[in-house]
Amino acid sequence: MEAVIVVTILALMQFYWFGIEVGKMRVKHQCKAPDTTGAPEFERMFRVQQNTMEQLVMFVPALWLFAEVVEPLWAAGLGAVYLVGRTVYRAAYINDPKGRSLGFMLTVLPTSVMLIGALGATLYGLI
Amino acid sequence: MEAVIVVTILALMQFYWFGIEVGKMRVKHQCKAPDTTGAPEFERMFRVQQNTMEQLVMFVPALWLFAEVVEPLWAAGLGAVYLVGRTVYRAAYINDPKGRSLGFMLTVLPTSVMLIGALGATLYGLI
Amino acid sequence: MEAVIVVTILALMQFYWFGIEVGKMRVKHQCKAPDTTGAPEFERMFRVQQNTMEQLVMFVPALWLFAEVVEPLWAAGLGAVYLVGRTVYRAAYINDPKGRSLGFMLTVLPTSVMLIGALGATLYGLI
Repeated sequence: MEAVIVVTILALMQFYWFGIEVGKMRVKHQCKAPDTTGAPEFERMFRVQQNTMEQLVMFVPALWLFAEVVEPLWAAGLGAVYLVGRTVYRAAYINDPKGRSLGFMLTVLPTSVMLIGALGATLYGLI
Repeated sequence: MEAVIVVTILALMQFYWFGIEVGKMRVKHQCKAPDTTGAPEFERMFRVQQNTMEQLVMFVPALWLFAEVVEPLWAAGLGAVYLVGRTVYRAAYINDPKGRSLGFMLTVLPTSVMLIGALGATLYGLI
Repeated sequence: MEAVIVVTILALMQFYWFGIEVGKMRVKHQCKAPDTTGAPEFERMFRVQQNTMEQLVMFVPALWLFAEVVEPLWAAGLGAVYLVGRTVYRAAYINDPKGRSLGFMLTVLPTSVMLIGALGATLYGLI
């Protein structure tokens, strides 16, 4: 399970990093709290962070359920794809939101595989 | 625990589904990223998804703690109420946000019962 | 692990409480769904709740991983700092968003310590 723990912590640290970047953009563009709109550069980074949170709340439970009912090393491998995908997503989105599809798919696919895989393995185990 | 795993995955898949619907509304109403406001139909679906995330981050840990310290089958049963409640919430909200109360209560109540139940059982176990 | 369970449930209940306050502000200032902007008092409470969700999705997994690979009582102690920090954050933010730094740091620091600690202990265990 060590690999799954490491992947989980890296995913949380990545989200943490995105949060720091939102804070930096807030200062840079003098976008005062509680506003969440303003300079395009701030808005893009804010949406990257918010979308990553949406993915993270599915990713972490999916990762652990898949590790538990299917296989921990496969879970960690799919988790690594997620980590790369989110980094690609961030880079593409802040450059131009239109180019976010590849990075988005690379994070959505591992989560989909783990959710369907864990559901299938659990239902199969009940037969 | 199989029933708890299945309920967890279904709740994550439901949230995943809401996210796909937000994406469809974005395309339909040409609401470009990073905007989160625009056509009322898009804004409603976006708020359904965002509110579901708020509920999900409480629901998943509440479900597992209740399953662990109280009873897995009761947890799964309360989780099924949550799943129905969120579906009712989505349908009512996109029709008219004013009618969202019933679906909202049906998701908030199971989580409340599980949080209070798990806290009570844990504190009682310490006596 | 009882202390870790209690801290987890209290953190979820705190977030639940913030959600109720957002609902109250919505009614008080007649800020109709799906709007998320309007009266400053509503916007502040909404951002307190949203920021708490961002922290919560890192805090809960960090708490449990740290408890598992390092030490449960230290995890619970750091979790107590988080709970106090979020309460300070809420009080300061709704008074004036500029004063949110102390409460913010008090919630970010325990999570940082737990993430780095759990990662370090896991990697050290692999050597």
